[in-house]
Amino acid sequence: MTTVLKLGGSVITRKGERETLAEDALDRAAAAVASVPEDLVLVHGAGSFGHPPADEYDLSPTAGTDDAAAALDVHDAMCLLNDAVLARLQDHGAEALPVHPLSAGVRRSSDSVTLATAPIETMLERGFLPVAHGDVIVDEARGVSIVSGDELVVEIARSLQADRVGLCSAVPGVLDQDGAVVPRIDELDAVAAALGGSAETDVTGGMAEKVRSLLGLDVPASIFDLDALAAFLAGESPGTLVAGGPEANRSA
Amino acid sequence: MTTVLKLGGSVITRKGERETLAEDALDRAAAAVASVPEDLVLVHGAGSFGHPPADEYDLSPTAGTDDAAAALDVHDAMCLLNDAVLARLQDHGAEALPVHPLSAGVRRSSDSVTLATAPIETMLERGFLPVAHGDVIVDEARGVSIVSGDELVVEIARSLQADRVGLCSAVPGVLDQDGAVVPRIDELDAVAAALGGSAETDVTGGMAEKVRSLLGLDVPASIFDLDALAAFLAGESPGTLVAGGPEANRSA
Repeated sequence: MTTVLKLGGSVITRKGERETLAEDALDRAAAAVASVPEDLVLVHGAGSFGHPPADEYDLSPTAGTDDAAAALDVHDAMCLLNDAVLARLQDHGAEALPVHPLSAGVRRSSDSVTLATAPIETMLERGFLPVAHGDVIVDEARGVSIVSGDELVVEIARSLQADRVGLCSAVPGVLDQDGAVVPRIDELDAVAAALGGSAETDVTGGMAEKVRSLLGLDVPASIFDLDALAAFLAGESPGTLVAGGPEANRSA
Repeated sequence: MTTVLKLGGSVITRKGERETLAEDALDRAAAAVASVPEDLVLVHGAGSFGHPPADEYDLSPTAGTDDAAAALDVHDAMCLLNDAVLARLQDHGAEALPVHPLSAGVRRSSDSVTLATAPIETMLERGFLPVAHGDVIVDEARGVSIVSGDELVVEIARSLQADRVGLCSAVPGVLDQDGAVVPRIDELDAVAAALGGSAETDVTGGMAEKVRSLLGLDVPASIFDLDALAAFLAGESPGTLVAGGPEANRSA
């Protein structure tokens, strides 16, 4: 059983305060993650670490630069956050190791991201907890662009043929226009109207893009908030279940 | 024309003083490297940054650990040195980007190191200067072990089918028992006696191991010191030429 879990940047950092951790939330998340006995790959987002420099340089998954110093500003901010996440995980007993996508991935001209996952697989085999993060990535068409945590989750889950995917976000799931959690999504059209009005849009894609990516996976994915993280890690499907692949076909 | 160049840790750091740069030497090396118009991959060694924590935890290419905190101590020290090398290269106008082997490589049970070089290749295509470094690496048999800069040079040169390899070291080449530079080595046996007495041995292998690895390459490799770096980058073969592959066969 292999799980790929993303911790949203807005969960573990204070979004308005540059390079500031949401200490209590990070600690709760780290405690929950460190207690998982099965294979787990963690990916975290950028929050108030990576987004400010990315915005300053106008970098996104579709806007790049040939300026290495600009790329490094974003990378260094994300490594700083990654160091903090690793430290907190180790405080809770997890043998956590970093995976920096800039060193392992490429965004192809087709816009898809490929990531060499042999190190992640070997880390899992040896009992380590690999911790990747949103980052800059070398881009065949754009020099260096942003790779979002959401993109990495999808690519890693696909490459590892993961069994489960979870996105721990700032909201308890995909919300409809009345603010209620949509329990299950089998196709994007059914919730497009609600998602179009989401306030979650940021430089690395909002909720609609998350759902679109997750529907393309062969495995079920859950979107939930920090209060539901322990339940997800215990095997439940809190929040919104995005039923990609076989499940989507079955219900069609 | 693709060149893979290693800057020895003993060239760019002060070996007796922990985490201390050899500022002038690093600046000279960075200036020379930044002036190269052709494709160049830089790899640097550990020196007084990576070696002390590696020694403390008894880590080497053949001795590993399952303790992620120990691995991270070495990794963080090497990232600190890498940051300094990148900064100096950027001061001289190079668009330098980091490549962290922990995120991209695996030491197989056979002891060989495999590194995903697609990011390096794309960096070169886009005009960036990739800068890798000795590091910790996940190890199928040992948890995490050390990967030396010398090992990375050989693996990267092989994977990229590089045209030239250079090792910029603290000595002007392979020295014979009288301290004179051996101009050319076609096989290890011819110089084994002299190499056996080398004082250069350290945790990541001494001169004999360097020569053995370089002889296995299909391309000529030069070992020289900082005074000869500009000449090497200009296309000359200063110091000792280790004539691996076809050249070794031709002279045999």
